[in-house]
Amino acid sequence: MPLMRSWIESANSADTEFPLNNLPYGVFSVDDGDLRCGVAIGDRIVDATGLEANGALRADPEADVLDAPYWNDFMELGPGSWAKFRSALTAMLSDDAIEDLRDVITTYSVQMVEATLHMPFRVSEYTDFYAGRHHATNVGTMFRGPENALPPNWLHIPIGYNGRASSVFVSGTEIRRPWGQQKSPDHDMPAFMPSRRFDIELEVGAIVGQSSFGPVSVDFAEDMIFGYVLLNDWSARDIQAWEYQPLGPFQAKATATTLSPWIVSKAALEPFRVPTPNREHDLLPYLEETKPGLYDISLDVTIQPEGGMESTLARTNYKEMYYSSAQQLAHHTTAGSPMNVGDLLGSGTISGPKKTERGSLLELSWGGKEPIEIEGGTRNFIEDGDTLTLKGAAVGDGYKIGFGDCVGKVVPALDAADLPYKTER
Amino acid sequence: MPLMRSWIESANSADTEFPLNNLPYGVFSVDDGDLRCGVAIGDRIVDATGLEANGALRADPEADVLDAPYWNDFMELGPGSWAKFRSALTAMLSDDAIEDLRDVITTYSVQMVEATLHMPFRVSEYTDFYAGRHHATNVGTMFRGPENALPPNWLHIPIGYNGRASSVFVSGTEIRRPWGQQKSPDHDMPAFMPSRRFDIELEVGAIVGQSSFGPVSVDFAEDMIFGYVLLNDWSARDIQAWEYQPLGPFQAKATATTLSPWIVSKAALEPFRVPTPNREHDLLPYLEETKPGLYDISLDVTIQPEGGMESTLARTNYKEMYYSSAQQLAHHTTAGSPMNVGDLLGSGTISGPKKTERGSLLELSWGGKEPIEIEGGTRNFIEDGDTLTLKGAAVGDGYKIGFGDCVGKVVPALDAADLPYKTER
Repeated sequence: MPLMRSWIESANSADTEFPLNNLPYGVFSVDDGDLRCGVAIGDRIVDATGLEANGALRADPEADVLDAPYWNDFMELGPGSWAKFRSALTAMLSDDAIEDLRDVITTYSVQMVEATLHMPFRVSEYTDFYAGRHHATNVGTMFRGPENALPPNWLHIPIGYNGRASSVFVSGTEIRRPWGQQKSPDHDMPAFMPSRRFDIELEVGAIVGQSSFGPVSVDFAEDMIFGYVLLNDWSARDIQAWEYQPLGPFQAKATATTLSPWIVSKAALEPFRVPTPNREHDLLPYLEETKPGLYDISLDVTIQPEGGMESTLARTNYKEMYYSSAQQLAHHTTAGSPMNVGDLLGSGTISGPKKTERGSLLELSWGGKEPIEIEGGTRNFIEDGDTLTLKGAAVGDGYKIGFGDCVGKVVPALDAADLPYKTER
Repeated sequence: MPLMRSWIESANSADTEFPLNNLPYGVFSVDDGDLRCGVAIGDRIVDATGLEANGALRADPEADVLDAPYWNDFMELGPGSWAKFRSALTAMLSDDAIEDLRDVITTYSVQMVEATLHMPFRVSEYTDFYAGRHHATNVGTMFRGPENALPPNWLHIPIGYNGRASSVFVSGTEIRRPWGQQKSPDHDMPAFMPSRRFDIELEVGAIVGQSSFGPVSVDFAEDMIFGYVLLNDWSARDIQAWEYQPLGPFQAKATATTLSPWIVSKAALEPFRVPTPNREHDLLPYLEETKPGLYDISLDVTIQPEGGMESTLARTNYKEMYYSSAQQLAHHTTAGSPMNVGDLLGSGTISGPKKTERGSLLELSWGGKEPIEIEGGTRNFIEDGDTLTLKGAAVGDGYKIGFGDCVGKVVPALDAADLPYKTER
């Protein structure tokens, strides 16, 4: 599919992440005003809440679903309404739109540089998966050796765990280095201290836009997904190492999860579908893929020390996943748990086969043993003041589909004196 | 503390779970009418939503916090308001209440037998802990042998994992046996089939009634807790065994968690406080207990096959826990994750030292190897048609504080033909 041209010229540039082909969903405010639902186009944000109130573009004739600081009520309307809304907005923004429509959009849009972006949806529950084969192999090799790298269930189940929804934040939120209980191998007893092995996980998040009750097929799950975001699952490796047996990661993953500000719809990603990889074991029928479930989205991670230059840490692609979001969602429902609008599913860390394609510092520095060269220094894990950024783009013919940068700056842990307890025995 | 006498005679019986000393919070409806907030007293439910609308008892002079099918908005008001509300309601129900107050209560109350009980609060997120030492030792012995029964971190961390809030249900909800991916030791490949090792976990749940952002002390955490429920964390042991490495239980615990219909306030449990047990390792300072954090609550589990007699499976006590809810909540905040009103913390399975004190069938039947005698049969795990009930009581001088039974009947798994996919390769 070629670039769809818009009368908003900035949307026709090969450099913009937001051509007419994209139309991602976000929440914005201007000058500390109300939070409003918006759609990105070139260097502008269309005020979808305003268009609804004005009557120029209504997703639901009866209810003001966009009179809210999140897209959840819109999602609830379902795929038919999502498609109609996208089609109507496309007509208003396309370069053959009539003057009257252009005037309405001009009235109900703002310059993106003037806007502050907020969480685009209300997270109901957050589940994080572990579905990147290279990542699981790398981590397994470090912890258990190359012979036992992949757990026996890994090629059969999209392994996942429930995460914490209350600490999911939008891009730009400062990330405070966590304190936590840790035990170093050369001590008998654990200590309570700031994490020294604080890390990122490069992921893509799928947003559930329809609820379900009871088991669903992969096809049905596919239809429940509203769109995708970039997702950084911040991880304290030292806390994780001590706590994770036998019930999995808990405080190591509780500090924060950062999302890109824009939700890219499935419709925008449709031209970029690719199948999950070949498998040495057939999946059980409930997990079988009936259409390509991944997307060709190139992904970058960069690091920028305080006052320093930005360096690329890794470059990989979402198509490296072993399981698609639809397969993960179908698995998620097998035991009967209801799924709700606003549920967020992290893909799992995305690493490619090469060293420069690894989606975490744990892998890039091989557990802190092989420091990574960056502009002006080296890194094993994140240092205070570092800004970590995830970038993603599905690259089409003369255009690209982006999510907005997913950014987090790590600030120092709280002072011991500011904690509500003693930190040493 | 002795029985506090009420002019509602049924509340003065030694048999009732709902004397004036209790006043637990629930949500009820009558004849398919609206869901309303209610307080149990003897054989009646006081219509707290009605009292608020009438103006006779208002928790907040400004806002109708009880005009909702849950107690969350009331919780948000904080401990001062909880205490005032309880004190005012106690005055209205006490046997020296004046006639006018009695008349108001008579108007705004219903017979409990005429009411249907619903979820008493909206669950924000659900965390389940693993803080019963006998349970952890039993399970660890079965899986890893007696030498390595407790994981190395267990005596230092209240081990917990995030559960699924969308499948938390009120007592009386039918529990459908789940399908799931399993692998038997004598097969090379996993299969998708109904769980054959479906189990209960006897727990007490703490409800977070105040939000926090950043680390909190055990004392502060104690003040954040609104009250307690009985909690049955249904668990599919065969699904769990195959999926839980390395990231913990997921679909094994996703089917359902059942709560008692009544939230017992901390105030009602105050006379029953007991300390956590002696420890061979001191806890890190952030986990130290400054006042007794457990409660003397005797707990029973019963089983009743379809059309059969009820048998007691186990009898134990909440005071067997190694970590209190306040310690768990303080640990939960160490890495900075916000906590919200309506967060639910499961204590972990409560087992005592004796065989008859074990809070799961996994332990009672020792992994299915020692069938348990019940009226008219034996059990290793739950069979279709079995009704499992948790009962709890803090027993005072001439009265007891109860939660209402926490009941779930297990119905057969969905037919393969009713699933949205093939179940066999």
